[in-house]
Amino acid sequence: MKKVVLAYSGGLDTTFCALHLSKDLGYEVHAVLVNTGGFSQQELKDVENRAMSLGIASFKILEVVDTYYQEVIKYLVFGNVLKNQTYPLSVSAERILQAKSLAEYAKSIGAKAVAHGSTGAGNDQVRFDMIFQTIVPDIEIITPIRDLKLSRQEEIDYLKKHGVSMNFEKAAYSINKGIWGTSVGGKETLTSSEYLPEEAWPTQVSESQPKELVLTFVQGELKGVNGQEFSNPVDAILEVQKLAAPYGIGRDIHVGDTIIGIKGRVGFEAAAPLIIIKAHQLLEKHTLTKWQLFWKNQQAEFYGNHLHEGHYLDPVMRNLEAFMLSTQEFVSGEVRVMLHPYRFTLLGIRSAHDLMSNKFGSYGEMNKGYTGEDVKGFTRILGNQTAIFHQVNHSDDA
Amino acid sequence: MKKVVLAYSGGLDTTFCALHLSKDLGYEVHAVLVNTGGFSQQELKDVENRAMSLGIASFKILEVVDTYYQEVIKYLVFGNVLKNQTYPLSVSAERILQAKSLAEYAKSIGAKAVAHGSTGAGNDQVRFDMIFQTIVPDIEIITPIRDLKLSRQEEIDYLKKHGVSMNFEKAAYSINKGIWGTSVGGKETLTSSEYLPEEAWPTQVSESQPKELVLTFVQGELKGVNGQEFSNPVDAILEVQKLAAPYGIGRDIHVGDTIIGIKGRVGFEAAAPLIIIKAHQLLEKHTLTKWQLFWKNQQAEFYGNHLHEGHYLDPVMRNLEAFMLSTQEFVSGEVRVMLHPYRFTLLGIRSAHDLMSNKFGSYGEMNKGYTGEDVKGFTRILGNQTAIFHQVNHSDDA
Amino acid sequence: MKKVVLAYSGGLDTTFCALHLSKDLGYEVHAVLVNTGGFSQQELKDVENRAMSLGIASFKILEVVDTYYQEVIKYLVFGNVLKNQTYPLSVSAERILQAKSLAEYAKSIGAKAVAHGSTGAGNDQVRFDMIFQTIVPDIEIITPIRDLKLSRQEEIDYLKKHGVSMNFEKAAYSINKGIWGTSVGGKETLTSSEYLPEEAWPTQVSESQPKELVLTFVQGELKGVNGQEFSNPVDAILEVQKLAAPYGIGRDIHVGDTIIGIKGRVGFEAAAPLIIIKAHQLLEKHTLTKWQLFWKNQQAEFYGNHLHEGHYLDPVMRNLEAFMLSTQEFVSGEVRVMLHPYRFTLLGIRSAHDLMSNKFGSYGEMNKGYTGEDVKGFTRILGNQTAIFHQVNHSDDA
Amino acid sequence: MKKVVLAYSGGLDTTFCALHLSKDLGYEVHAVLVNTGGFSQQELKDVENRAMSLGIASFKILEVVDTYYQEVIKYLVFGNVLKNQTYPLSVSAERILQAKSLAEYAKSIGAKAVAHGSTGAGNDQVRFDMIFQTIVPDIEIITPIRDLKLSRQEEIDYLKKHGVSMNFEKAAYSINKGIWGTSVGGKETLTSSEYLPEEAWPTQVSESQPKELVLTFVQGELKGVNGQEFSNPVDAILEVQKLAAPYGIGRDIHVGDTIIGIKGRVGFEAAAPLIIIKAHQLLEKHTLTKWQLFWKNQQAEFYGNHLHEGHYLDPVMRNLEAFMLSTQEFVSGEVRVMLHPYRFTLLGIRSAHDLMSNKFGSYGEMNKGYTGEDVKGFTRILGNQTAIFHQVNHSDDA
Repeated sequence: MKKVVLAYSGGLDTTFCALHLSKDLGYEVHAVLVNTGGFSQQELKDVENRAMSLGIASFKILEVVDTYYQEVIKYLVFGNVLKNQTYPLSVSAERILQAKSLAEYAKSIGAKAVAHGSTGAGNDQVRFDMIFQTIVPDIEIITPIRDLKLSRQEEIDYLKKHGVSMNFEKAAYSINKGIWGTSVGGKETLTSSEYLPEEAWPTQVSESQPKELVLTFVQGELKGVNGQEFSNPVDAILEVQKLAAPYGIGRDIHVGDTIIGIKGRVGFEAAAPLIIIKAHQLLEKHTLTKWQLFWKNQQAEFYGNHLHEGHYLDPVMRNLEAFMLSTQEFVSGEVRVMLHPYRFTLLGIRSAHDLMSNKFGSYGEMNKGYTGEDVKGFTRILGNQTAIFHQVNHSDDA
Repeated sequence: MKKVVLAYSGGLDTTFCALHLSKDLGYEVHAVLVNTGGFSQQELKDVENRAMSLGIASFKILEVVDTYYQEVIKYLVFGNVLKNQTYPLSVSAERILQAKSLAEYAKSIGAKAVAHGSTGAGNDQVRFDMIFQTIVPDIEIITPIRDLKLSRQEEIDYLKKHGVSMNFEKAAYSINKGIWGTSVGGKETLTSSEYLPEEAWPTQVSESQPKELVLTFVQGELKGVNGQEFSNPVDAILEVQKLAAPYGIGRDIHVGDTIIGIKGRVGFEAAAPLIIIKAHQLLEKHTLTKWQLFWKNQQAEFYGNHLHEGHYLDPVMRNLEAFMLSTQEFVSGEVRVMLHPYRFTLLGIRSAHDLMSNKFGSYGEMNKGYTGEDVKGFTRILGNQTAIFHQVNHSDDA
Repeated sequence: MKKVVLAYSGGLDTTFCALHLSKDLGYEVHAVLVNTGGFSQQELKDVENRAMSLGIASFKILEVVDTYYQEVIKYLVFGNVLKNQTYPLSVSAERILQAKSLAEYAKSIGAKAVAHGSTGAGNDQVRFDMIFQTIVPDIEIITPIRDLKLSRQEEIDYLKKHGVSMNFEKAAYSINKGIWGTSVGGKETLTSSEYLPEEAWPTQVSESQPKELVLTFVQGELKGVNGQEFSNPVDAILEVQKLAAPYGIGRDIHVGDTIIGIKGRVGFEAAAPLIIIKAHQLLEKHTLTKWQLFWKNQQAEFYGNHLHEGHYLDPVMRNLEAFMLSTQEFVSGEVRVMLHPYRFTLLGIRSAHDLMSNKFGSYGEMNKGYTGEDVKGFTRILGNQTAIFHQVNHSDDA
Repeated sequence: MKKVVLAYSGGLDTTFCALHLSKDLGYEVHAVLVNTGGFSQQELKDVENRAMSLGIASFKILEVVDTYYQEVIKYLVFGNVLKNQTYPLSVSAERILQAKSLAEYAKSIGAKAVAHGSTGAGNDQVRFDMIFQTIVPDIEIITPIRDLKLSRQEEIDYLKKHGVSMNFEKAAYSINKGIWGTSVGGKETLTSSEYLPEEAWPTQVSESQPKELVLTFVQGELKGVNGQEFSNPVDAILEVQKLAAPYGIGRDIHVGDTIIGIKGRVGFEAAAPLIIIKAHQLLEKHTLTKWQLFWKNQQAEFYGNHLHEGHYLDPVMRNLEAFMLSTQEFVSGEVRVMLHPYRFTLLGIRSAHDLMSNKFGSYGEMNKGYTGEDVKGFTRILGNQTAIFHQVNHSDDA
């Protein structure tokens, strides 16, 4: 019997796929859940039970959160990547790692096909297919939901017919949770004008008193929180999330270009990603030179877009990562952050690599490095070309 | 007697300059205050009285706020320019217009020199000198404070000697106010780690209830607030500022590269600039295409930096402005903003030019424009080169 | 009867399409040849005769070379656009204008369909389809060659069966000629390693004596050749082509990324485009500032790629054109070029807007604008941040 | 006695400096010639004899051509760096390495000062000073020619007075020779309009028959010429230069922005650099993806400009180098080049990493990777946003 590896989440669509692949298409179904940090142990257990009740060949959980950090999140921090200046790419980034893990697993067990539950309407189908066709070009890709164009009710009827019992009620808000943020879609995000109501947010605000957080970065990576060292940045991210999430920090609505050309809107809450990125960025403002900051931004915007669109395996991504990694050599130090309900403030930083060192003079005060005469000469030369331009072209209306 | 045009603000430094130019250097002093929106009528009256008491030849107020908007602020909005992702360039932008206005005034009255009170330690000297040497290359630039390297006490002694009586006490926080934001410097901003205390902020928080604001943009320019039309965007900016400032919105500390190569830190409060820029940017996310957004960002970062460094008259700035202006053709519509103490939320937009139109399908739902089969083909071609790359290079570790 | 507008060139594929649309699909066929400068009067007459012999409803020649210049070529010159630093985009640029003209014509006569003879393997299908689906989204696109996947012999048999007599022999090299260059494909260009033989080039070398050419640009546009004024730059381009083509100038092989992800290779000869672009670029080096040159290059590379890939109607293209147009204000003057067999040399320029004016000092000689002391101060400040960086980070291995 | 390290070339200016530092300023003069490949053994011997005749403390030749390659030239090849699309940065690149070597030598012998013979009018003073103030911030920089503003005749008189006999005649063309090209300045390059005469070029054309050259690159570095392997790319560069220089290849005039804001013009001949860069670039077109090519170009232009302006020690340069190095992983293969008098032609390439592999179909022919239907779907999605934009905005005049 031909093996298929199915990306399985325990929801309606992938449960349908599991049965359909097995019963209708005659595949030996190997269901796989790739955990990028969004599932609790209880949830994983539930998904496993559901999967095994479907009579499939195997169910496997791939715990990839460390790889996810090392191969993706790390660079999103280095690049301070917020798509459209807002969104930490929570879901986009996760899909990449999931597809990659699935492809490698499929190869390892000699599967002839991989299947995913994407519809024909979203970004995920593109991300999955692009990764699969690159890593496992000889393995068939099967997408029952996209191909059969079934309605939700038709899927439910099919499952009921095959004796599957699960909660078929549709949630008011669809949630996707991972270590780098939780997305929230609902009727408001289908409009351009409405905001999500308070109750739609997965984490409710329970803290009201300001609290200071000290984040320690070592070469761009978060390695400490409030003095506690974390050898694995994943644990440091979880700690920040634990402390900051009850403040309702990091909520927003992202509006952006989907891969398929239409605009889309999605809510998200991402306390740790927002705080970590903004803190990291502040540390960089103190430790990198002007042109390092400039080029990091120019490239990071593209890096984020390209990742979002599923081009993670384009070798240019490795090249941009080499650039980013190289910039982090001295991005080490502490960042002070104050948490408030719904917001946070960056108080300041301390770093041995701070270029705003008193040794070289404070801004606005004279210092030993240069004189007013130097600045006069500097300015004369710096503005030389523009001055010549205006004289040559008699631009009286300059 | 040779005429000098002096940039006069009524403070210690420029008061010293006025006397020094007149008494010691023998100039006919024409003091000029260029108002970019930071002075009230009462403050202007006070400065005028002080100026006239010094026995100088003339005092003149140049009201340039409309020009400031047309030549600078407009493009900062079009470009969503926040230096280092934070600072609306409040002071930098203002200096450019002030220098330009002074140079043109000097030319108009046949002055032989222009003078400003900059020290040899900051950005302003470079901005003033660069504009002057470009627009009025044949006019001498005099900078007494920079050249004489006087201490504050020496200046005070000089003024007292000449019978000038004014408040010689140094404020704990130095403030610079203009329509595009107020900067705040103090002992905390001389460190990397400390934040400004509540009392340092010029506008104290007096509003506690959330309030909705509706901003109307026409081709990228703010032309309405809460349904009230403003033919002059300057008035609309003032209206937003009036409504939002009591919330303490738009406070932050900017850390950045000064023109002279050291890092500097300055606090600012800029409620209207922050709200307007973020609202404008949201409207753009709905009305511009992916590559318009990309290129606007690539260029705007440079535009902001180049302006900050005093290169306003480099013709490349006019070219970048032509680009930005061209992008605004359809950036029209309403943006809903919710004001809260210390923060604001962008609720959503309404625009006839919204590319996220239901007519073309909602994200995540199938639509009439394309099918799942189309996306399959799309993905196959889109990922073709990367797939080839990996096959050619046997990148098993992809 | 439903009208179809067919892009007709008189070749095998479009002749097949004409008959197929008429005989098999029952369309009223309106054949259109869009002339972008590649057809002589005799050739146009021949194509017309062929078309009319097919019993179609109408045949029309759209002479668009002036529009082609105004809407496309002009900006390729402003941007010095050479794809991959080599190719003047001869064919890519032409297809855009052809598709646009066809779409507008189809709309004007109330056609229900447009048809083109592209195969499923190249760039042209994408360019045509993208323009059509944007300008005439309600009109059907028909591509018989792509859809029927006929072999050349099957097309010939079909035509013979229908009594069409034409030269069915396949040329050793396929040629596409337009005002902005002629492409040449053949068995060598299907390899990566072989060069086109001398006889493959459409224009043979007949001149051996060097000849000087003086090109006059007015605001970036070619308006004179050897002292003769041309009010229409199209005529100036033709004049340069007439003078330079016999030297075999502008031959090369372009290697690049096709829209569909594979690499492709094509020979071209484009004497006038190469000479004009290089001459224009030299004039810009003398008349634009450093950052104008920088940003023009950053953008022009994208502009060329985006055009090449058929994205001409993305509004970002209009924005980039606004930028480019704005840069040309002072790009006026004469460029001296020496023609030799197979190559040309740029001798120098003369321009009233030359920033390398003796008035401001010659490079390497002291001048009035600044002193050695100024440069010392300049350098101290300019290198300040890097010096601080190295001191802070004890980079002994700098 | 205080030690000074003097950058010594054996010419008039540095000979003057040697005597002046020793006789007038009382320094213990350590003259150093940093050889970046421009001096023959005989020339080095002559310079040494001259130096020792001046009665200075020591003379030392630093042979740095290998370091020059490893730290600078390698990246100029990786980046295909031609300033203003023309100039391989021959002199600019050399000065960086010379300054760096001098600074390190000065530190190693405990010198209190470094001296160079730059005037106050050119780029070199900035490059030298910036490197010195960064690497050896505590060591004084002495520039007698810049400070004393002596005329050529005054220098000659001074040397004669001190008994120095050398050829005091000024050459019609000033030459600067190094492994990465030879610059040529003369009366023509002081104008904008005139070209250098045949006799001004250091290498006269002596070959007339075409000759094929096969260059082998390994991960972006030149490692073979005509089948001969070179473990050191420096030797491969010398081999190409030996073969190609007699053809008069690589001559041109560079026009560009000097660091001090004026435009400058200089002739150069650089056969090996031009051939190697263009050959390397062609190989990249075959082996890199579309976006790798795009980003390499965006960055390389800045890299070249920043290097040219003396910012080699800005850490952003190391970051850009990390990017470039990362792109070279698969840039391996052979490039065929045909040499002709005054020009060369790139014939083609052969590479195991060629993405234009027949395995994936030839351009213009159908292949196994995708179908015409795929391309239709691709195009529909690819053009989706632009189509929506035009429908939303009723752009009839698209």
